Amino acid sequence: MIYDLEKRGTHPIYEYLYMCIKNDILEGKIAPGEKLPSKRAFAKTQGISVITVENAYAQLLTEGYIYSEEKRGFFAGDMGGKYVQGEKKRIRVEPKKQENWLVDFKSNHILYDNFPFSTWSKVMRQTLLDQENSFLQSPESQGVAPLRQYISMHLEKYRGLSVNPNHIIVGAGTEYLYGLIVQILGHSSMIAVEDPGHKKIGKVYESNGVRCIRIPVDQDGLELGALQGSNASAVHISPSHHFPTGRVMPATRRHKLIQWAREHNSYIIEDDYDSEFRFSGRPIPTLASIDEDRVIYMNTFSKTLAPSIRIAYMVLPEKLMEVFRKRLDFYSSTVSGFEQYTLANFIRLGYYERHINRMRNYYREYRGRILKAIKESALFEKVTIEEENAGLHFILHINREMDDEAYVKKLKKNKINISTVAEYCYNDNENFQHKFIINYSAVQEEELKKALEIMNQALEE
Amino acid sequence: MIYDLEKRGTHPIYEYLYMCIKNDILEGKIAPGEKLPSKRAFAKTQGISVITVENAYAQLLTEGYIYSEEKRGFFAGDMGGKYVQGEKKRIRVEPKKQENWLVDFKSNHILYDNFPFSTWSKVMRQTLLDQENSFLQSPESQGVAPLRQYISMHLEKYRGLSVNPNHIIVGAGTEYLYGLIVQILGHSSMIAVEDPGHKKIGKVYESNGVRCIRIPVDQDGLELGALQGSNASAVHISPSHHFPTGRVMPATRRHKLIQWAREHNSYIIEDDYDSEFRFSGRPIPTLASIDEDRVIYMNTFSKTLAPSIRIAYMVLPEKLMEVFRKRLDFYSSTVSGFEQYTLANFIRLGYYERHINRMRNYYREYRGRILKAIKESALFEKVTIEEENAGLHFILHINREMDDEAYVKKLKKNKINISTVAEYCYNDNENFQHKFIINYSAVQEEELKKALEIMNQALEE
Repeated sequence: MIYDLEKRGTHPIYEYLYMCIKNDILEGKIAPGEKLPSKRAFAKTQGISVITVENAYAQLLTEGYIYSEEKRGFFAGDMGGKYVQGEKKRIRVEPKKQENWLVDFKSNHILYDNFPFSTWSKVMRQTLLDQENSFLQSPESQGVAPLRQYISMHLEKYRGLSVNPNHIIVGAGTEYLYGLIVQILGHSSMIAVEDPGHKKIGKVYESNGVRCIRIPVDQDGLELGALQGSNASAVHISPSHHFPTGRVMPATRRHKLIQWAREHNSYIIEDDYDSEFRFSGRPIPTLASIDEDRVIYMNTFSKTLAPSIRIAYMVLPEKLMEVFRKRLDFYSSTVSGFEQYTLANFIRLGYYERHINRMRNYYREYRGRILKAIKESALFEKVTIEEENAGLHFILHINREMDDEAYVKKLKKNKINISTVAEYCYNDNENFQHKFIINYSAVQEEELKKALEIMNQALEE
Repeated sequence: MIYDLEKRGTHPIYEYLYMCIKNDILEGKIAPGEKLPSKRAFAKTQGISVITVENAYAQLLTEGYIYSEEKRGFFAGDMGGKYVQGEKKRIRVEPKKQENWLVDFKSNHILYDNFPFSTWSKVMRQTLLDQENSFLQSPESQGVAPLRQYISMHLEKYRGLSVNPNHIIVGAGTEYLYGLIVQILGHSSMIAVEDPGHKKIGKVYESNGVRCIRIPVDQDGLELGALQGSNASAVHISPSHHFPTGRVMPATRRHKLIQWAREHNSYIIEDDYDSEFRFSGRPIPTLASIDEDRVIYMNTFSKTLAPSIRIAYMVLPEKLMEVFRKRLDFYSSTVSGFEQYTLANFIRLGYYERHINRMRNYYREYRGRILKAIKESALFEKVTIEEENAGLHFILHINREMDDEAYVKKLKKNKINISTVAEYCYNDNENFQHKFIINYSAVQEEELKKALEIMNQALEE
C-alpha cells in the first residue's frame, strides 16, 4: 500500500490518503477485513509524519470504511458491493418555454398591473419589523391565529358566513387541503366529483388513494339522482361558479344537496374558489351557511391575489375538526409563517377588501369590453354567450353542427389557445358539445378582435 | 302574503322583500310549488312600485328560491328541508399559550439573533423588484428553475453530491414530500422507518394510507437483518445524524443498505436534515452519492434558516422522476413563488453559505460551552455524554438504575422540559434506557447551570 503523493493536487496529504484508501476499499483492492499497515509503518513508507496518517485513519474510522480492534490495529470494512461513480456533468435547468399565443383563452392569470405590489411589499416590510419573533416560530399546524381570525371576519362580512376561526385550516393551496380531507375522511371513503369539472380535483383525490365517482352536471349543477345511489362519503362541488359551465347552483338544489348529506351522513366540500367575482345580484348564500355540520367550506387566495401565493383554507365541521385534532395536528403548517402574517395584516388593514373590490370592478368593466367586442364581431351571429354573470370565464356556444376538436386544432395553428367544455367531461355528454371556454382575464382587446375574425373564418372553411 | 315594510330597518325595500319571501319559503310558510302573487298585484298590496317587486323577484329567481313558468308566473322552489340558522357569536382565537420553562431541552428553535434578518429582507426587497413578473406566474410544479439550479450547486459544493436539477422537487416541508413519495410509490407499498426515530415520520406515512414497519436501530443505524425479511418498498433513514440517538451511520452499513435496495428493487429515503451541522471531520458521503438510482435524497431549509420558512426538497432517482412526470406534475407547487425566488437569490449571492458557516461555528462554540457546563456540574460524574460530534442535540446517558418516566415528571415540575430516547421507541428496547435528549440550541447558559443542579438533586431524592 503506497500512494503517489505528487498526484494529490491541492488536497492536504491526510485527505489525499483518506481518498486513496477509501477508493481502494470500495473497489476491492483492499479486501474486507484486510489489515491496514500500522500508522507508524505507513508513515515511514510514505515518508510522512505519523500524525498525518492518524488524521487519515481517523476520518476513515469515523466514516466506517475501516474499523479498529484493540491492540491488533486497523482493518478494511465490508462494503457489501462495488462502488462505481460514473462521470456526471453539470446539468442546467431551462425554465419552461412560454408559448407565444395571439390570444390565450386558457390562461386565467391575472394581469400584471392588478397585483397591489407596493401595498403588498409595504405590508411585508411592516410584518418583517413587527413579527421578527413569531417569524422564528414554527407556525401552528392549523395556521397562525391572526390569519384565521381575519379570514373568519372576512367570511362574515363577504359571505355572510360566521365560522369559528378554530375550525379553519390554512394550507399551501387547495390541492394540499384535498389531500388532508382524504386523511380526515379515511382512505376507504369515496368522493363524488362533478362531470364536467376540473379534472385535477378527481386526480388529486385518486392520487391520494381514494376512489372517485363522477356525477353528471345538469343546468342546476350536480344531478342528485346519480348522487343518491352512489354511496359517496363526500361530494366536491363549486356551487357559486361551476367550472367549466359557469353555472351557479340555485338554492333549491343547494337545500336538496344538504338534505342528501344529512340523510347519508355525508359531507359536501364547497369549493368557493371564484365567489369574489360575482358581478350582478346579491351573492347566493353558501352551503356552509345552511348547514355548518355537513359542509367543508374551502377557498383560496391564489385566485384573488396572485397565483404565486400559495395560501388556501378550509373550514371544518365540528366533528371533522375533532378528527383533525386527534389524528392530524402533528403536521407542520405548509405555509410560511411570514406569508401568513403578511396576509393577516393585509386583510386587517383593509387592503384585501379594497383589492377585491378594485378587481371586481376591473373585471366587470373588462368583461363588458370583451363581450362588446364579441357582440360587434361577425362571429356573434353564430354563437350564444352563456353564464356571463360571474367569475373570470364564460362560455361561447357555437350554434351549428361542427367538429369541436378540429376547430380547436385549427385555432391553435393560428395561435389561438382555447378549450372546450367537452375536454372537462369524464364521460361523453352530448349536452356539452360546441361549447368553448373563454377565460378573459389575460386577453388583450386588440388581439381579441383579430382572434374573433380568425375564429369566424375558421368556421367557414 | 304581506310584509310590514316598517320593519325593514336600513335595508332597501326590494332587499327586505327578498329576505322575507326567502325566509317564508325556507320555513315552509310558502309551500314548494306555491304560486306567488303577480308582480303588479304584489306591488299594489304592498303599496310600492312594480320595479321594486321586480328587483326582489329577480334576486329570488337568480338564487333559485323561486322559478318562473312562461305566462303562468312565479312559483316557490322546493328546498327539500327546513332551514334554521342558529345564533352564532363571534369567537376569538387565542394564540397557543407558551409554557414558561426554566430550560427546554425539547425545543430546537434557533435563537432569535441567528436569523439573518437584514440580509433576508434585503434579498426579499430585491427579489420583489426583479421578479415582479415571475411573481405573478404559478410556480412550476417541481419548484422554480433557479431555485432547483442553486440547490443542485449547493449540494455539489457541500455534500459532494452531483444531482440533476430536473430531478429536484421543491415542497412545503418534508412532511408534504413524504406524502408525495407515497403517491409516487403507490398506496400498496410498505415503508420501513427507524425505531427509535421521529414518530412523526411513520405517522405521516400511515396517515397517507401506506403500511409502515419499524426496524430496530443498533449502534450503526438500521439493523439490516430485520430489513431483509421485511418486504419494504422503501426505507426512511437519517444516516448523517440519527434522531434521537445522534448516531452517524458508518460507510459499511451504508453500502450494505444500498446493496439491499438493489437486490430488492427498493428505495432508500435519505433524510439528511441535520447534515449542515457536523462539527468534526469531513462529512460522510451521502447514500445518494453512492447510488443515485436507489436513493431519494431529502433535506429542508426550515432547520438551517428558520422554522417559519416552509421549504424542503427531494432529489428523485430517474425512474421515480418519470413516475412523477407521468402522474403527478399536474400538482401546483406548494411553495410561494416569491419565497422560492428569494431563497434562490439568497443561495446565489452566497448568503446561505455564509449563514450556514456562521451557524456551524456558532453551534460548535455554543455546544462547547454547554458541554463544559455539564462537565463542571455535580451531575457529570453520574452521566456519559454520547454522540456530541454532530447536529443540534446529543444524548445524556445516566449511569444508574432509575425510573426514567418518574425522573422526567419530577423535572417537569421543576420547569425543566426533557425527553427520553425511549419516548421515541415504537417497541420497548432495553438499549435505550436512561438516555435523555439534550436539544441545546435554545438553551440559555445561566438557566442551564440551575437546571443541572436540579437534575442532579432529582437523582438523589
